[in-house]
Amino acid sequence: MATLDQKPLRVALAGLGTVGIGAYKILMQNASVLEERTGRQIVVTAISARNQSKDRGVDLAQCAWEDNPVNLASRDDVDVIIEAMGGENDPAYTLVKTALENKKHVVTANKALLAYHGVELAEIAERNNVSLCYEAAVAGGIPIIKMIREGLGANRISGLYGIMNGTCNYILTTMERTGEDFAKVLKDAQELGYAEADPTLDIGGGDSGHKLVLLSALAYGCLPDFKNLSVEGIDHLEAEDIEIAAEFGCRIKLIGQATKLEDGRVLQMVAPSLVPKTSPLAHVDGVLNGIFVQGDFVGSSFVEGRGAGEGPTASAIIADVMEIAKGHCAPVFGVPSGKLEKAPTATAQDWRGEFYVRLVVEDRPGVIADIAPILRDHTISIESLIQRGRSEKEPVNIVIMTHDAKGEDIRAACAGIADLPCVLGKPLLMPVLKI
Amino acid sequence: MATLDQKPLRVALAGLGTVGIGAYKILMQNASVLEERTGRQIVVTAISARNQSKDRGVDLAQCAWEDNPVNLASRDDVDVIIEAMGGENDPAYTLVKTALENKKHVVTANKALLAYHGVELAEIAERNNVSLCYEAAVAGGIPIIKMIREGLGANRISGLYGIMNGTCNYILTTMERTGEDFAKVLKDAQELGYAEADPTLDIGGGDSGHKLVLLSALAYGCLPDFKNLSVEGIDHLEAEDIEIAAEFGCRIKLIGQATKLEDGRVLQMVAPSLVPKTSPLAHVDGVLNGIFVQGDFVGSSFVEGRGAGEGPTASAIIADVMEIAKGHCAPVFGVPSGKLEKAPTATAQDWRGEFYVRLVVEDRPGVIADIAPILRDHTISIESLIQRGRSEKEPVNIVIMTHDAKGEDIRAACAGIADLPCVLGKPLLMPVLKI
Repeated sequence: MATLDQKPLRVALAGLGTVGIGAYKILMQNASVLEERTGRQIVVTAISARNQSKDRGVDLAQCAWEDNPVNLASRDDVDVIIEAMGGENDPAYTLVKTALENKKHVVTANKALLAYHGVELAEIAERNNVSLCYEAAVAGGIPIIKMIREGLGANRISGLYGIMNGTCNYILTTMERTGEDFAKVLKDAQELGYAEADPTLDIGGGDSGHKLVLLSALAYGCLPDFKNLSVEGIDHLEAEDIEIAAEFGCRIKLIGQATKLEDGRVLQMVAPSLVPKTSPLAHVDGVLNGIFVQGDFVGSSFVEGRGAGEGPTASAIIADVMEIAKGHCAPVFGVPSGKLEKAPTATAQDWRGEFYVRLVVEDRPGVIADIAPILRDHTISIESLIQRGRSEKEPVNIVIMTHDAKGEDIRAACAGIADLPCVLGKPLLMPVLKI
Repeated sequence: MATLDQKPLRVALAGLGTVGIGAYKILMQNASVLEERTGRQIVVTAISARNQSKDRGVDLAQCAWEDNPVNLASRDDVDVIIEAMGGENDPAYTLVKTALENKKHVVTANKALLAYHGVELAEIAERNNVSLCYEAAVAGGIPIIKMIREGLGANRISGLYGIMNGTCNYILTTMERTGEDFAKVLKDAQELGYAEADPTLDIGGGDSGHKLVLLSALAYGCLPDFKNLSVEGIDHLEAEDIEIAAEFGCRIKLIGQATKLEDGRVLQMVAPSLVPKTSPLAHVDGVLNGIFVQGDFVGSSFVEGRGAGEGPTASAIIADVMEIAKGHCAPVFGVPSGKLEKAPTATAQDWRGEFYVRLVVEDRPGVIADIAPILRDHTISIESLIQRGRSEKEPVNIVIMTHDAKGEDIRAACAGIADLPCVLGKPLLMPVLKI
């Protein structure tokens, strides 16, 4: 157990943006409780950022400065590096790698870095007997890494479903509340600062995917592998999809899911999905994140909180620093990286369940007669069909809810349907979750 | 970091009821994942229960048997005792105390034991450098102990609100769904096994209180002290309370709350409370538990899961055993027990906010004229007043929603109102939460 006569833990901060400064603020403002809870002082000894002279609203004068963040990894007065720069490549990659090789612990909020280089970095950390912590990389305000690895650690996980991107959830919640279309809501969100100027990584589902592969590795012991992931974003959704989903007792959420199939493979996918209003995930509103986990003994647990922002992200970073201060060290992905399962994971093609399919069609007699045989030929059974509005000149939406079907069958059917002359554009396909 | 050449961790089980057998099942069924995740084998070497010959559906033949559970604490082949007997007194108390004195780790689901003897036992554990773990004592399926101590450990906690008794939540949810009264629903719950034959500890709020003092000690570093707690149960609620609460956009839940007052004191109380339907706590249904935590950097986090039962409780117990296997040890209540704050905590008298007050009165003119001056004299301002039904012969309910008021003022007013000849029985008082 840590005792108060232990030496202070010396921290270096790489990156002094929102996240880095947030971490610094907690270390200053909550220094006394951190010391009581860990038995040690935690002090910032060195920092690095792009611009030394910028006023960041905090006094950093007593910290040594490095122009090149990678130099932090070689300083004798540093035990832990907080990497708060972001980006899957350099300088973050080289900083983290060098720090671990130099037997320094690393705490990072960098999901992209770990989604691409996680296994290599985990091996280096474990070989050097230091920690590589990333609680802040997934849903900052929700301690989901520790929850899966420690809190639910006694369970074999069977399902994991998460709303892990606040920008998308804000857009979907606002579309539902206002009835406005995607493009309009995105533009407003950008003006309010809830969406980036280039929102591709968020609305395309990539950011959720980076997070999902980390959780999936932890929960199932499979290799974190972003390249093998099925990812769909929310940019093709219309206000009418949200309305029709509501008629079926559902809300639409961008869900990253990782589930264990009967054949033992782990299915990983990110997709806008219909979630029943009875599920706690349906009530995760605005910029919040929420994650639902199923285990063999615990049953289901659900956790909700702020996903991003200075405070929640910094809270997660310092929680990791505290574990390091207490001398707690765990394998990066829950089991030693050499034991991670290398078997291929499953994709959206393997997902089985009900689907929501929206087609944009010319409004003329015979359209259903053209579509129905294609569904039949792919053994897709229709549970219900809704056609909204009528217009001789404008295309109309047809929504089909299917009975249980397999991802590859419904996709093959949709490809055939898309080729029909009466069908305009690509069909929109969403899984209907039963959680 | 744990490595696979470490010796097995040797566990003794005291108590072989639902919880003890659940823990045994996880250790058997998930042995391979537990070993991968902790780097060690975990083996059960000794057991004790009241009846050795009872068939428990599992093969315990290879475990040494002790008639007296306290003897487990002195065995050389035991590193960890799982105390799954329950009860705040002997034999649980002496077993746990002796085990800690003999430098054996203890994992327990026994909230009453810790609510009454927690500080003494924590001191013994810390002096002997062993763990005393109790994740299973509060909301089994929710890893709330680890969440407060580790996940949100970087924060100063300002508020904590929990639905921590599945029996009460089942009764309240069923009353809302069926419109039936408390007594009828309790009787049905007893027949279904959701309530004990003697349900006093659950419906009276005592069980929630035991859990609250543990969370409160962890979150605020105050002395766990059940005697100083304000506790009210749900047995005076009527179906009409639930209906009227709904008209105000609220549900009624038995909430254990621990909040930091402006004067620095921690207010702890258990009471049926009105919770806005917009709060995630309002959607915790049936036997589920849910806990809402506010911290200075993280903002709000919410977590929901099964509170009791074999699987969730055993999941929490084995999570604790895994931390011990990894060599992780933390002060029992988050900070060394000598540093726990001994200042008095605040009670329901100090709670400030809106109140729901239901009076049973004779239905005759002038009742409101009698009540209103008493409220005025205690500086209680009425936000709204509802009188339901009219009958010359039967008493009727009057419900008053107040503006912000202090607990001691509204209680003094209610005492005065109870003395009026037109008022029958004791007024029912519930806080209205704004979370």
